[in-house]
Amino acid sequence: MIQPRILKGFRDMLPAEERLRQRLQDTLRGVFQGYGFVPIDTPMLEYTEILLGKGGGETDKQIYRFADHGRRDVALRFDLTVPFARYMAAHSSEIPLPFKRFHIAKVFRGENTQRGRYREFTQCDFDIVGVDALSADFEILTMMADSFRALGIDGITIRVSHRGVFNRLLDRLGIGGDTSEVLRLVDKLRKIGADKVRSGLAELAGEAAARDILDFIQPRADNRATLQNMIALSGGESAASQRLDGVLSLAEESGMSAAVVIDPSITRGLDYYTGIVFESFLGELPEIGSVCSGGRYNDLAALYSKQELPGVGASIGLDRLLAGLEELRRLPQLGPETQVLILCMDASCLGTYHRLAAELRQDGWRVEVYPETKKLPKQFSFAEKRGIPVGVIVGPDELAAGTANLKNLTTRESIEGVPFGEISQRIPALLTRQPHSNSTETEA
Amino acid sequence: MIQPRILKGFRDMLPAEERLRQRLQDTLRGVFQGYGFVPIDTPMLEYTEILLGKGGGETDKQIYRFADHGRRDVALRFDLTVPFARYMAAHSSEIPLPFKRFHIAKVFRGENTQRGRYREFTQCDFDIVGVDALSADFEILTMMADSFRALGIDGITIRVSHRGVFNRLLDRLGIGGDTSEVLRLVDKLRKIGADKVRSGLAELAGEAAARDILDFIQPRADNRATLQNMIALSGGESAASQRLDGVLSLAEESGMSAAVVIDPSITRGLDYYTGIVFESFLGELPEIGSVCSGGRYNDLAALYSKQELPGVGASIGLDRLLAGLEELRRLPQLGPETQVLILCMDASCLGTYHRLAAELRQDGWRVEVYPETKKLPKQFSFAEKRGIPVGVIVGPDELAAGTANLKNLTTRESIEGVPFGEISQRIPALLTRQPHSNSTETEA
Repeated sequence: MIQPRILKGFRDMLPAEERLRQRLQDTLRGVFQGYGFVPIDTPMLEYTEILLGKGGGETDKQIYRFADHGRRDVALRFDLTVPFARYMAAHSSEIPLPFKRFHIAKVFRGENTQRGRYREFTQCDFDIVGVDALSADFEILTMMADSFRALGIDGITIRVSHRGVFNRLLDRLGIGGDTSEVLRLVDKLRKIGADKVRSGLAELAGEAAARDILDFIQPRADNRATLQNMIALSGGESAASQRLDGVLSLAEESGMSAAVVIDPSITRGLDYYTGIVFESFLGELPEIGSVCSGGRYNDLAALYSKQELPGVGASIGLDRLLAGLEELRRLPQLGPETQVLILCMDASCLGTYHRLAAELRQDGWRVEVYPETKKLPKQFSFAEKRGIPVGVIVGPDELAAGTANLKNLTTRESIEGVPFGEISQRIPALLTRQPHSNSTETEA
Repeated sequence: MIQPRILKGFRDMLPAEERLRQRLQDTLRGVFQGYGFVPIDTPMLEYTEILLGKGGGETDKQIYRFADHGRRDVALRFDLTVPFARYMAAHSSEIPLPFKRFHIAKVFRGENTQRGRYREFTQCDFDIVGVDALSADFEILTMMADSFRALGIDGITIRVSHRGVFNRLLDRLGIGGDTSEVLRLVDKLRKIGADKVRSGLAELAGEAAARDILDFIQPRADNRATLQNMIALSGGESAASQRLDGVLSLAEESGMSAAVVIDPSITRGLDYYTGIVFESFLGELPEIGSVCSGGRYNDLAALYSKQELPGVGASIGLDRLLAGLEELRRLPQLGPETQVLILCMDASCLGTYHRLAAELRQDGWRVEVYPETKKLPKQFSFAEKRGIPVGVIVGPDELAAGTANLKNLTTRESIEGVPFGEISQRIPALLTRQPHSNSTETEA
């Protein structure tokens, strides 16, 4: 016998969790498609050369890489951005720009599995490429806010900054060349605190520069004051500061000022970003970190194509989001998997059971037929374990009369002698909600 | 520059195809959940030992297998049945029986890529485990028929047989032991013809046995006659023939006799099956082969658990099904990705564009804002390429008046001076259908 174990960092999804994951994805797809975003998919497996590109960094160590049957060097995708870049280079002639796509799919990283990190997890990416415009930047933020609202989360805060403004500050301070260490340090402000960031920066760039950077990344009394401070310290207005100003103005005009916070400490580490950058936090649960992050980049597919492809986009980590919703007790209430169980009283009635089930499904109910003539307590116990609220009981006598007995399987309340054709309309009286409702809360 | 190529046998999904795939999956999920089936998921990557089990056969050669970072021998799943068996063994205490699950997911096989065979493809499996009962067998067939009806395919034929009846015939003919060669030959009847099957069988089992087997697998005038012939040649009635009789009776009772055909030549090759076996064909396109196949097995998780777990289930190959629907021109008509384009006339109106877009989305329309103030012909050309039917035009004058001009972007028909609050209700006049309709056919 083989032990039925699974790999560390990988998970089975039991039905309750998988239903939630699908509901979350359906909700997000609905929002995205409302904005004219379209779904794409790419292979799970690609040439390693494509995925690693210039290589370097953590990714090289974490990627699942091997030789396939044709001795090709292949690997499992570790994010959805790199395959999207390759995709745009490969299909540029087939895709009208600007292009708005979303992609919800599994990615793989062989990293340490501590603290809710998995080796297989689901990302949800959405981007607008082929245009560098304020409207696109703002649309991504709006769609993020809409997505969280659709998921039943109201208090989302999107913290926005602009890499161009930050770079102007660094230029003014004479910190040119590789600024990635500075960016990473600043990015850790919320994690390690201002003192540690200051001392780290002092080591990298000197005390004076450290003081100015700390001054720059501190939020002020309100968004406008923060923006003014950023502009002043970075040497005056620029196209970058004007873009950030535009985002803020549109947010104010759209009543989103509560959700959008200018936060100059947001840098998103990666070299990749060139324009606005943002992270977002659950108002009641900031400690789980950003649940949706992204920004603007000036050349998505540079590794694979000469065509310059600016874009802006974001990524939701579905696993972290799900964990957050669970902690906040904001998981969607999905109702019972099955609403109506047709009990199996007598094998001679099987045809009738399946016919009744088909009719109830036509009316929108989720219905199953208990498949064997087991003793009733056993069938009731099955219904209880599954959380099925309504039972339909038809034995040979009822079959002859053309009626059924309906039963609320929780309260055991019954309605007897219901003609077959009226079952559907009598079910709601045994519940408190209508067919395909998303909730099963029952009033006392 | 890196060439943006993808691996042989793998595919990018462009938006039009990915939308179709998601619609297909949504439709199937809807049907399955109406029967109380629940979704599960399992890891894409598992211990090779788990996936190969006893091993042997084609699978060993086709599986994507490698050593991970921890030098574990791992592999990509090649089907959804083996992971499901491992899953049931691992979670037996958490899952009430009978258990009805579906699983729609990618699987991987490094096989030859000729004739529409891919190395990454999507399977859709559904099973009822934990019970050996006529009702469950029949429910799987009903759900198959319902699924195809929901996909807009009426003329589905489900060809059903029973391995137990066939085994009785082979026993009577003295063909015991390893019958897999015989099963495989019979399974090829439709592909290679009766003569080749007969000569192959004669070689394996002698002329007399070959004649009897050929006689057995030939369909007769109708289902009842075929079943009677099977019973007669296999040595009389048995539990197996009674089960097949029961399936046929329930099908007759449910008005499914046209869809269910008793076909004793169906064997499904694999040793795995012990009860009913079936394949299904598109009435108008039998030549693409079975689009949904399966059967009853008596011990799903034998490799991983002592618990005996009988079940019945089927698998739909989504890629083949999609190819079939395309050939039949029965692909669902999904309508435009975006229904309404708000043109970008002037940057000063951006806030209004996004506000109008948000209001129209509230009313259920799929809306996007063109992100830049490009010349109108360029924006119209974008709308045309994307197939967006309606344009909303607001410049500074209209903004001052609080009105918009609406335009059917195909006919160029316009409605001018529509107050902002009335845009939503005027859109249908520019289309022929209501919001979120699945179709865009336009009457002349």
